[in-house]
Amino acid sequence: MRLALGITYNGQAYEGWQSQPSGRTVQDHLEAALQRFATVPVATVCAGRTDAGVHGVMQVVHFDTDVRREDFSWVRGTNTFLPPDIAVQWARGVPDAFHARNSARARRYAYVLLEAPVRPSVEAGRVGWVFRPLDGEAMREAAGHLLGEHDFTSFRASSCQSPTPVKTLAEIAISRRGPYWRFEFQANAFLHHMIRNIMGCLIHVGQGARPPEWMREVLAARSRDAAAPTFAPDGLYFLGPVYEEQWGLPAQAAAYHWLP
Amino acid sequence: MRLALGITYNGQAYEGWQSQPSGRTVQDHLEAALQRFATVPVATVCAGRTDAGVHGVMQVVHFDTDVRREDFSWVRGTNTFLPPDIAVQWARGVPDAFHARNSARARRYAYVLLEAPVRPSVEAGRVGWVFRPLDGEAMREAAGHLLGEHDFTSFRASSCQSPTPVKTLAEIAISRRGPYWRFEFQANAFLHHMIRNIMGCLIHVGQGARPPEWMREVLAARSRDAAAPTFAPDGLYFLGPVYEEQWGLPAQAAAYHWLP
Repeated sequence: MRLALGITYNGQAYEGWQSQPSGRTVQDHLEAALQRFATVPVATVCAGRTDAGVHGVMQVVHFDTDVRREDFSWVRGTNTFLPPDIAVQWARGVPDAFHARNSARARRYAYVLLEAPVRPSVEAGRVGWVFRPLDGEAMREAAGHLLGEHDFTSFRASSCQSPTPVKTLAEIAISRRGPYWRFEFQANAFLHHMIRNIMGCLIHVGQGARPPEWMREVLAARSRDAAAPTFAPDGLYFLGPVYEEQWGLPAQAAAYHWLP
Repeated sequence: MRLALGITYNGQAYEGWQSQPSGRTVQDHLEAALQRFATVPVATVCAGRTDAGVHGVMQVVHFDTDVRREDFSWVRGTNTFLPPDIAVQWARGVPDAFHARNSARARRYAYVLLEAPVRPSVEAGRVGWVFRPLDGEAMREAAGHLLGEHDFTSFRASSCQSPTPVKTLAEIAISRRGPYWRFEFQANAFLHHMIRNIMGCLIHVGQGARPPEWMREVLAARSRDAAAPTFAPDGLYFLGPVYEEQWGLPAQAAAYHWLP
């Protein structure tokens, strides 16, 4: 049978999501814990791979297994074998037609950015940081140029394995609480480093180094050289995939409320 | 001359505030960084010592030095030598009559608690955790019994060095955002483990193990045996001391907005 799991993790200590020979990734830890609980090897497919230092508020994986346990046993049992900064939030049996990556209609990410004269400390590794003040209206105007279906080659890492650079960006919502800015992104899918590259450009605009219209030029250039440098991974959170209701999977994670 | 500094830190990696032979405390790191910047030894006095695992949103220290630098140089220079989870937020010259501990009219702390079926992960080490639902009204009623001047012996660790168990608790404010409860405390001073012991009792009441009036009995007993076990340090944040305006020190820290 096929099972889906919701996973939350702090990415600071890990070399990203995807399995590596080093074994120091979230997937490596998850599959090792699943194997200890199920006593057979388990191979997972995730909704969206995250880079080193990027956090997961609701990663979703699926896997096939002959092992039968109650849903809550999969959660509690697997968590027993996971480090304290990774946890399974829920487990659900799903039809074989469900696929964690392919069934996702959209993905949501948040970037949390501290605007302050002094670097982060109590929240080190959890937020990006700028010391020059940001202009929210200028950033919103710049973000508007990116909405819709576009060729996002200018924001694509050379390591990107996506079959196409054309993605549909449905939303960039920019809000603020005290000195913390929150940028929330939704797209059908994202290219590798796409959000961190967009963040670099939004910050350029927000600090007045470029006008908002510059974002349109960067997009039209279809060249990585046109955009700002890739911004730090620290403040990036994978909020999770968006699935159709028919699959019956939980829509939001508790830790969503943890972000400013 | 006398200088005051505002310090923010994540307590997870440290053996509390106060200097230890191990050198693995926040004070040890701060004084080592100050010495590297000032090139002479510096001895600091803090507003409120924090335990291992407790975070500082605005610790305040003072020290005396003959070294003359601009305020912003003390901040930037010292931060160069501090680990990423400790930062100096501000520096101000103060009169010799100012004393980080003795001039504090009150101290403020926050406790952040996750109420969820699954333990914390992305926020591991930053929040306490309960899996049974809490009754906010019952906790508020119980907290009300503690307000005012009382002998808080029932909530005092045996290691406490305070000359008196009598303290004045001015406020316990209980609020909630999503699954995160926030408890904010203000008192003229706190006994060792006082907040973590009160938290243990509030959670007992919040989960219905005891009625709200039980808190009055615990207080009246003046015995540690009457109260619930000491709760985890993970969710405890020292928000900072309250000084009179005459000293001209910043009243709030950016990271205050980081807490749910």
